[in-house]
Amino acid sequence: MTPLANNHISIDCVVFGFDGQHLKVLLVKRKGEDAEGKYNDRKLPGSLIYQDENLDEAAGRVLSELTGIKEVPLVQFKAFGSKDRTSNERDVVWLERAQSVRVERIVTIAYFAIVKMDAPQLRTLRRENAEWVCVEEVGTLAFDHNLIIEEALKAIRREADNNRALLFDLLPKKFTAAQLRVLNEIVFGKKLDVRNFHKKLSQLPYVVALEEKQKGVAHRAARFYRFDKKAYNNVR
Amino acid sequence: MTPLANNHISIDCVVFGFDGQHLKVLLVKRKGEDAEGKYNDRKLPGSLIYQDENLDEAAGRVLSELTGIKEVPLVQFKAFGSKDRTSNERDVVWLERAQSVRVERIVTIAYFAIVKMDAPQLRTLRRENAEWVCVEEVGTLAFDHNLIIEEALKAIRREADNNRALLFDLLPKKFTAAQLRVLNEIVFGKKLDVRNFHKKLSQLPYVVALEEKQKGVAHRAARFYRFDKKAYNNVR
Repeated sequence: MTPLANNHISIDCVVFGFDGQHLKVLLVKRKGEDAEGKYNDRKLPGSLIYQDENLDEAAGRVLSELTGIKEVPLVQFKAFGSKDRTSNERDVVWLERAQSVRVERIVTIAYFAIVKMDAPQLRTLRRENAEWVCVEEVGTLAFDHNLIIEEALKAIRREADNNRALLFDLLPKKFTAAQLRVLNEIVFGKKLDVRNFHKKLSQLPYVVALEEKQKGVAHRAARFYRFDKKAYNNVR
Repeated sequence: MTPLANNHISIDCVVFGFDGQHLKVLLVKRKGEDAEGKYNDRKLPGSLIYQDENLDEAAGRVLSELTGIKEVPLVQFKAFGSKDRTSNERDVVWLERAQSVRVERIVTIAYFAIVKMDAPQLRTLRRENAEWVCVEEVGTLAFDHNLIIEEALKAIRREADNNRALLFDLLPKKFTAAQLRVLNEIVFGKKLDVRNFHKKLSQLPYVVALEEKQKGVAHRAARFYRFDKKAYNNVR
């Protein structure tokens, strides 16, 4: 067994995806048994770090081991070290069994990633272990993972405020105006007027309208757009 | 003795000040003896965390214990956990003596603070333990503290890019145009044209020219300015 650096430092990964309507987060399934019987719940992909790996290395390894996906750019955004993060007995028992260590206080270093849900790297996702869940529907997660997701969202909002290109990393290569608007609404937490949004969009030199339209949809087929990174960097 | 959470997690604080000409960082003096004899060097104010404190609490406690200053808003910006951060024998020996623990690998959670060097909270600075050093003149510090300062500078640059008000936290309440220009040059790492800078300054509604000028200076007395936070929030 690979030696642990120690049983006090872990990594957690918050991977966000957007399916065109909802912001989703990648969670792993957790099974266990406690005083109240068997349970099935969820947690972020996360684990303790090994002796021979740096934090960034550990983040990539943990995500790949638990979900099957690789080569996703992970960004460290915050350490969580509240003394109460291991106050839930179920979490401690589960982790002690999973890792065969005595668990005391754990500081976790959290990373986020944003991915295109149709990207090739995601094809290796192991659906028996991991699943995409709407951010508003995650329910109660293990440890302080609800808090970590909340803070990851804040970090992404700050980043996107500074660098709009980030939002386009969540969209497919060809996207509709409605998809871009909904994503903006979710990330910045406020409704946008459809007409104003369309007007603004037509003024952005880095959002390029394509000839192509949606196919096989019940409603009126919407035009596709693409993000022009060069044009974005020019106006930035 | 207060029980340690464990000997693997520490806090380091990067406190920046600006003396009107140079960006300075607050360092603590370190004395010790190793194979090559006695040494005197410097490190960031930092220490291991206690069992009964959260990370933010630990940051405030550590800074106050080591430097004497209190009530400085500290912002967590990055965790440093390279497996090589305790590869320098001197650092390990020093820490094991100072804390009476066996030191293995340590992950440190780094915080930054920016202060006005003439602020009342700084009057309690214990100069026998801690000193202000120009950022360009820190030399080789303990552990990976040079890297931590570098990353703190990057974090501040990102923050200031997003929120210009932050730079004014480093300036005295009354400052000259030259001080503001030099601070901008240091933080963003590029020289600014004096004339253009003055022109820009006169167009900023949140930098207000005062009647008052410098006194007792050899050169032509410069006008003082103040930062108007309300006006800044209005144009933001």
